[in-house]
Amino acid sequence: MVWVVEMVCPFQSIHEMMNSNNYRPNAFAHISTLNQQVIKANYAVRGPLTVLAEKIQNDLLEDSNDYPFGDIIYANIGNPQQFGQLPITFNRQVLSICQYPALLDHANEPWFKSIFPRDVVERTELLLKETGSVGAYSASQGIPIVRKHVAEFIQERDNCACHPDDIYLTSGATQGARIIMTLLISGPSEGAMLPIPQYPLYGALMDLFHGKSVSYYLSEKDDWNVDVKQFKQAYEEESKKGTNIRLCVFINPGNPTGACMTEESIEEMLRFAKAKGLVIISDEVYQNNIFRKEFTSFRKVLCELERREPNSNWDKVSLICINSVSKGQFGECGQRGGYIDTMNIPPITKDQILKLATIDICPPVTGQLLVDLLVRPPREGEPSYGLYSQEIEKIHRDMEKQCQFLYEATKRMKFVTCQKPHGAMYLHPKICLPKKLVREANEINIEPDELYCLRILERTGVCLVPGSGLGQRENEYHVRITFLAKGDEYVERFIEAHNTIMDEYED
Amino acid sequence: MVWVVEMVCPFQSIHEMMNSNNYRPNAFAHISTLNQQVIKANYAVRGPLTVLAEKIQNDLLEDSNDYPFGDIIYANIGNPQQFGQLPITFNRQVLSICQYPALLDHANEPWFKSIFPRDVVERTELLLKETGSVGAYSASQGIPIVRKHVAEFIQERDNCACHPDDIYLTSGATQGARIIMTLLISGPSEGAMLPIPQYPLYGALMDLFHGKSVSYYLSEKDDWNVDVKQFKQAYEEESKKGTNIRLCVFINPGNPTGACMTEESIEEMLRFAKAKGLVIISDEVYQNNIFRKEFTSFRKVLCELERREPNSNWDKVSLICINSVSKGQFGECGQRGGYIDTMNIPPITKDQILKLATIDICPPVTGQLLVDLLVRPPREGEPSYGLYSQEIEKIHRDMEKQCQFLYEATKRMKFVTCQKPHGAMYLHPKICLPKKLVREANEINIEPDELYCLRILERTGVCLVPGSGLGQRENEYHVRITFLAKGDEYVERFIEAHNTIMDEYED
Repeated sequence: MVWVVEMVCPFQSIHEMMNSNNYRPNAFAHISTLNQQVIKANYAVRGPLTVLAEKIQNDLLEDSNDYPFGDIIYANIGNPQQFGQLPITFNRQVLSICQYPALLDHANEPWFKSIFPRDVVERTELLLKETGSVGAYSASQGIPIVRKHVAEFIQERDNCACHPDDIYLTSGATQGARIIMTLLISGPSEGAMLPIPQYPLYGALMDLFHGKSVSYYLSEKDDWNVDVKQFKQAYEEESKKGTNIRLCVFINPGNPTGACMTEESIEEMLRFAKAKGLVIISDEVYQNNIFRKEFTSFRKVLCELERREPNSNWDKVSLICINSVSKGQFGECGQRGGYIDTMNIPPITKDQILKLATIDICPPVTGQLLVDLLVRPPREGEPSYGLYSQEIEKIHRDMEKQCQFLYEATKRMKFVTCQKPHGAMYLHPKICLPKKLVREANEINIEPDELYCLRILERTGVCLVPGSGLGQRENEYHVRITFLAKGDEYVERFIEAHNTIMDEYED
Repeated sequence: MVWVVEMVCPFQSIHEMMNSNNYRPNAFAHISTLNQQVIKANYAVRGPLTVLAEKIQNDLLEDSNDYPFGDIIYANIGNPQQFGQLPITFNRQVLSICQYPALLDHANEPWFKSIFPRDVVERTELLLKETGSVGAYSASQGIPIVRKHVAEFIQERDNCACHPDDIYLTSGATQGARIIMTLLISGPSEGAMLPIPQYPLYGALMDLFHGKSVSYYLSEKDDWNVDVKQFKQAYEEESKKGTNIRLCVFINPGNPTGACMTEESIEEMLRFAKAKGLVIISDEVYQNNIFRKEFTSFRKVLCELERREPNSNWDKVSLICINSVSKGQFGECGQRGGYIDTMNIPPITKDQILKLATIDICPPVTGQLLVDLLVRPPREGEPSYGLYSQEIEKIHRDMEKQCQFLYEATKRMKFVTCQKPHGAMYLHPKICLPKKLVREANEINIEPDELYCLRILERTGVCLVPGSGLGQRENEYHVRITFLAKGDEYVERFIEAHNTIMDEYED
């Protein structure tokens, strides 16, 4: 009998059996052996809804008749050129020659002159001289002349000294945020104040770095301004628990809110940061997408405070501002270029920022060149100036029009209220979802606004971001929708589906 | 008396005094409040020597006469186009039009036809159709058609099934390594087997993620093969301490060693990985830089094992192979493009890889297009085939020649021995440094080979990577030098300075 048992299973355990075959499962085999912080991280802008949208898109490409629409509208993401926004001619002419400098051999031929204006050639020659080739690694901090131009741009914009050494070119906002947050957040005793609602990059990075996200709320009824009282209260409560709050993130103009912070509000936040020893990240990627109000940078206000209140330690408030070529009127998302400009960072910390940039090697060189084009556009009198200005203005005007149109459209949607954005690329309407829909969502264990977005996607092809992915107060529901998509047909589809859903689920 | 004290310092502590001014230092103010893992991380390829080299370069640009040379040779980094290597014409023609598609409006004009061959136009049209615009975000995993082409390329190279879903396009090797290691390593109880000497990215990432690096040695006298006995011993010793070793990294062909792993060696490592449950990263970015021996991919060997030994759990060995457009004959470092191809990754883990890729948004689209060009070069009979082949072959031949030349040169250097590399872009000679130099280095608290590299830099302008930054056995000293720089003048300078230094420090 013993013998038989040994024949059937000569091993004492499954584990031993597996080893006998010289096999042990690796860490990828089970979710429990993966980095739990990755599991925890959430990035709703491209979440499960986008995956479903891509599936539907593929079905549509195969001529599926399963859907009452012909195309997916990716209104979940601020990706202007996906919606047919044309790139700026000057930019692409420069990049085109930088990619294939042999074109310059023809610089004296009539066809060349008829296509490429003189200032395109001049800019190309300057940038090629500085980089050698767009195929060579640049300095990790970024091409020196581009950093110099960024510093000059900021100096002019803010009337505030800025040195090229304070500038780090990046592959877009994400890398800049990642580097700064890596340096500040290394475990659960370290916290960051994050806005709610929020473009979810910052929360996702906090999860990855195992830090403590401390929510502060933007007040919808107060034009999405910071709720200062709640902000301070949230800070104090979390600090009392022993969390070292290292960082405060602002998104200005707001994503998803589209709200510009006022100078007063920025000053109040800077005072608080100085008193509490908070490093500030100000994500200012939408600084050129403004339709109402004015954009004021954190840097400008900090500079003014330094001037106005000397010897008050304003020069010790560390500030990192983020900008990108993906937004504004360029919309060059796929080219991956941006920068951070820093203020009041001690040299020892700058060395560490540089080390992290160095481990990433360098941002895409063509992305870096786009930064140069962003901060040094053609000037009046230069051959490309006219077309450039025309294109920039048209994009700006079109976006403003689409914003207005979509905003007006929300008024025709049942149980929807919406703050009119000052800028950025999104509306963030609040939807008072019927209880029946909320119950149904609870039953299938998803967020009510996610269920709503699913229903809209299935019926209209319009892909939204549920407010739950960006944070919101309890029992409130929002969706983020970009107003980049052109035309009104999809808007009508959206309104109709929305109103139908509201009726179907009516309590 | 009490009153006087209160006048002098009305605060109980400096801390209180600072607060009184509504100021508290932030985390950037002191090294102790920065992420200590960042402080610990080391990335020697672009370390303090490079910073000094850049300073000297700036001095030289300002016509300094302080140096007995006119130019810095950045032999510390594999950056071919910095050394004047020309990009492949076909690639840049495609990218040039992709940046400025309006050029296609002229496709029927004679000048256009004389510059851009037909297959350039066809490829451009295909890629633009798939991407819309290089300025639009792509899918986070990468442009579907490029992933399809990568899968086909691998299938053909390795005679092994490969699915587009197994491919993740990246912004180069670094991002791929970072994503995989983020998922596996979350704290000091988790380890990775890393080669010594090693391109220091992997060690730097382990430091950042607070993991435990477990060194295994490549045996210099055995043509830099893995020292299998020591490998297994190191694994067992660390495991006994309770470390969960999750991962093993191979660099094949080696950086800095230039050695190709044999099929037998790969098989032995795969068996070990299967038995111990190790995920494998194989960094194969130099797969096209081979002068002697053949390159064999880990994927090919794993596929063969699956075929040869069915039902032996080979299909559960998770493998990630890394490739890049920065190396090979393209040398398009600044364009930031690459991919990882994965094998045997469970869906639940793939979801997490995709999530991490999603947080990074997407790799540069032009970098992704370069991956397409890498895996689908012009074919025989196509108009660009002739020039393309010629250019690729010339780059390959030139590199081989320079390798041979520099290798021969090491024979004229005192106390230097060097393994002849099979490929890659580096020599990694061993230098028997004089005791006097070692003592001097100890006194000023730097590594002896770092002092040696400093001396070489000051005297010749040649910037090297000290072996201590890449790992080496105790009391051994190496330097890594790329053989990408053209000409022999700098080599003679280097040899002469080396021999002089050896004489000066003679014991």
